[in-house]
Amino acid sequence: MEDKLNQLKTILAEVTDLNNAAGLLGWDQQTYMPTGGAEGRGYQLGTLGKIAHIKFTSDEVGELLDELQTYQEQLDPDSDDARLIKVTKREYEKGTKVPPEWVADFAKETAVGYQVWQEARAENSFAKFKPNLERIFEMRREYASFFSPYDHVYDPLLDDFEPGLKTAEVQEIFANLRPLQVALIQEIAERPQVDDSFLRQPFDEKGQWDFSIDVITNFGYDWNRGRQDKSAHPFTESSGIDDVRITTRVDPEHLSPCLFATLHEAGHGLYELGVDRSLARTPLAHGTSLAVHESQSRMYENLVGRSLPFWEFYYPSLQNTFPAQLGGIDLERFYKGINKVEPSLIRVEADEATYNLHIMLRLELEIALMEGSLEVADLPEAWNERMQEYLGITPPNDADGVLQDVHWSSGLIGYFSTYALGNLISLQLWEVINKDIPDLPDQIRRGELYPLLEWLHENIHRHGAKFEPQELVKRATGSGIDPAPYMRYLQTKFGEVYNL
Amino acid sequence: MEDKLNQLKTILAEVTDLNNAAGLLGWDQQTYMPTGGAEGRGYQLGTLGKIAHIKFTSDEVGELLDELQTYQEQLDPDSDDARLIKVTKREYEKGTKVPPEWVADFAKETAVGYQVWQEARAENSFAKFKPNLERIFEMRREYASFFSPYDHVYDPLLDDFEPGLKTAEVQEIFANLRPLQVALIQEIAERPQVDDSFLRQPFDEKGQWDFSIDVITNFGYDWNRGRQDKSAHPFTESSGIDDVRITTRVDPEHLSPCLFATLHEAGHGLYELGVDRSLARTPLAHGTSLAVHESQSRMYENLVGRSLPFWEFYYPSLQNTFPAQLGGIDLERFYKGINKVEPSLIRVEADEATYNLHIMLRLELEIALMEGSLEVADLPEAWNERMQEYLGITPPNDADGVLQDVHWSSGLIGYFSTYALGNLISLQLWEVINKDIPDLPDQIRRGELYPLLEWLHENIHRHGAKFEPQELVKRATGSGIDPAPYMRYLQTKFGEVYNL
Repeated sequence: MEDKLNQLKTILAEVTDLNNAAGLLGWDQQTYMPTGGAEGRGYQLGTLGKIAHIKFTSDEVGELLDELQTYQEQLDPDSDDARLIKVTKREYEKGTKVPPEWVADFAKETAVGYQVWQEARAENSFAKFKPNLERIFEMRREYASFFSPYDHVYDPLLDDFEPGLKTAEVQEIFANLRPLQVALIQEIAERPQVDDSFLRQPFDEKGQWDFSIDVITNFGYDWNRGRQDKSAHPFTESSGIDDVRITTRVDPEHLSPCLFATLHEAGHGLYELGVDRSLARTPLAHGTSLAVHESQSRMYENLVGRSLPFWEFYYPSLQNTFPAQLGGIDLERFYKGINKVEPSLIRVEADEATYNLHIMLRLELEIALMEGSLEVADLPEAWNERMQEYLGITPPNDADGVLQDVHWSSGLIGYFSTYALGNLISLQLWEVINKDIPDLPDQIRRGELYPLLEWLHENIHRHGAKFEPQELVKRATGSGIDPAPYMRYLQTKFGEVYNL
Repeated sequence: MEDKLNQLKTILAEVTDLNNAAGLLGWDQQTYMPTGGAEGRGYQLGTLGKIAHIKFTSDEVGELLDELQTYQEQLDPDSDDARLIKVTKREYEKGTKVPPEWVADFAKETAVGYQVWQEARAENSFAKFKPNLERIFEMRREYASFFSPYDHVYDPLLDDFEPGLKTAEVQEIFANLRPLQVALIQEIAERPQVDDSFLRQPFDEKGQWDFSIDVITNFGYDWNRGRQDKSAHPFTESSGIDDVRITTRVDPEHLSPCLFATLHEAGHGLYELGVDRSLARTPLAHGTSLAVHESQSRMYENLVGRSLPFWEFYYPSLQNTFPAQLGGIDLERFYKGINKVEPSLIRVEADEATYNLHIMLRLELEIALMEGSLEVADLPEAWNERMQEYLGITPPNDADGVLQDVHWSSGLIGYFSTYALGNLISLQLWEVINKDIPDLPDQIRRGELYPLLEWLHENIHRHGAKFEPQELVKRATGSGIDPAPYMRYLQTKFGEVYNL
């Protein structure tokens, strides 16, 4: 049986190599590739993806998994091998249910969809994108049908990003959270607004870059196994546990993007870098889900990076870097400025208190479109109504409304909720960490970030994708995904910032 | 039959995608990869290479080639399709003759060989490297045996780099050339030496970089389809005809490395960028051989970049870039300095007049080792004797002698002669170009480099690998590879520089 397992591992190692190679090609596409390389890169990624899919969904893998079924049941269920067989079986069953022709058609449809969306957004014309979006949702319903029976048509989509999580669970979590978040921002809106104008001044690019690098070096980012580069949209890419790269963008007129994107992506990167070496070259050698990933990035960006203890340590150094711009801004004003709450149109620019509402809006619309209870034609109106209801503002145009995000045009339905779930998980973990490390705020105040990383490494990172997200959260916190800690956090933090 | 051809093209396109992806991974390995990524990158490259090899040498490809045999004979023999079938058949026959087990063993042997060579060179210990080198030559003899019968045991190795060329042909070419080159450098040695000390001063890195970029932009390098980065050893990498990247190295204390490496690699890059678009995603979409490639790089580096007309145009601008260093050096002194001839120990630092002698030495030793007429144990002595005979100097140690080059440790036997053959071809082409463009020197004197590129594009670049190197040279110049033009060039040029 160990021979069979080794046969399986050999195939999985090659599939992982192909995926890691594709990861590097994707990184290059967004950092250094000359524009002319786009078409060829598309072919390369297509071929790598196709070969990896064929290898992974081969009959040989299916037979090995069948033969290993009994063996797996005899293993310690938490062992690497037992989990590898289990996760591979889950992915294999999903992968073989989708006809290759559908995959090829969908790749074409979304390649066109992405092009049309770019033009439609530039021209502020939802009508232009509408036929493509209709076809994308139609194909996604077809996709869901491959997995029937299901409890909800949205379940198979969500499962691609959050293995094991159900639509009903997410709906319940968000139903509890939404009224509380809406009430909080209404309360904040009645208080005097804080000033953050000092963040929008000229800031030397090198100064921004070096300061950000210093901070995440102190987080424990291992530069022998990673690097940071610039890209239009910040992202993290792992092409193996010893090569995890992050990117950021630098706005020479605004302090926040480079700094907070660096902290955010470092959170993702530390997760990938922390996966146990025994999982290398297997499908377990990465974070277990987007939501758990986002819990790590949001923790470093917000719970650490927008906290008062953090800036008690780092603000003098930031002031030294930018004396002309920040010399006259005291710590309290700076801290409030980076924590300003203001309902706004664009999700990626939203603050901690409003962000989740942007997500809930998208999730509800996605579910309605999948169910067929909402037509694509009525989507802009539904979008604008909910913006008014949740955030109290109405987009002046579709470019800054329903057309703002790339996800749907690329076929990514079921993705958005992971952003909000990540916020919730980050606080569940944070409460446990603060129990396990009672002087965490003092450690951060002294610039000691390593004990935090050690905790995350022990409880989250090293496991890679061994445990499904709900199970991992339960192991680490004793409960499933729960919005209460996040709500407590928002109420405490913004209660102080806005004197509620 | 067109269906069969399309089936073949589909497979070849995927093989090309895999090779192009591997090319990008290799580029990254030498430019931006964090050190920790080395092991994983090795696995990725191994897997991509293995899958490409399996696909290319599959029975399906063999059957398609058999079925297309008659069809090919009916096509215009110069057509893309006829050449594609012909070249694929040649590569297929070579690829299927080598057992996969040998390929895997050789990969392991050379991976170890490379490590040991690095240590042996650092410790100046040939004895340490000797067992590995013996095994590598033993395995290369085994490799040659897969292709028996052959005229010479070295033929199959040479053929990997110069398809169709025979050992006897190269030996004859070099036998004619060697006494003339030896005589020339002896003659030069009797003349007063020129001064090039001004090249070794502090030169601002950005100034060096920008000047080099300006020059190759004017050569016609297309930055929408390429880029330049830094690496320890300059190289050119093509991951498709629309993504061809070059690298250089910058020595802040020496003007030559960045400048001449940039011109050299630009010559390689322009060749790859000039391949006809109709050949994209086929095995024909790259230069036809290392020697023809080297003819392009040496042409831009030496025939253009170390010529008087070139510097009549560019020297004022270089002086403006570095007024403190070059303000007091007149054009004649500069021109002579960059063309200084001096026998030296290290091949990669050799000048135009001595370079080929380094190559001939290596070729003769490789052939003797393959024949078995020389033992590896006797190699250092044979090396030193020939250095004395050809260049009049004896290496003080093996690190600067027989251990200096990486090639043998990596299993590259049969490679060296292509460097010298490239020099010869560059002059054969140059004589024809000067007939076709009679005012070429005046064009260069005015900084007009585009007509040269157009000639190369029409006669060399666009054909990609359609024609074997000897055939391509014959089509472009009317003769096979011939050392006479190169010798005429050396005698004229250095006759002037050294007043012979």
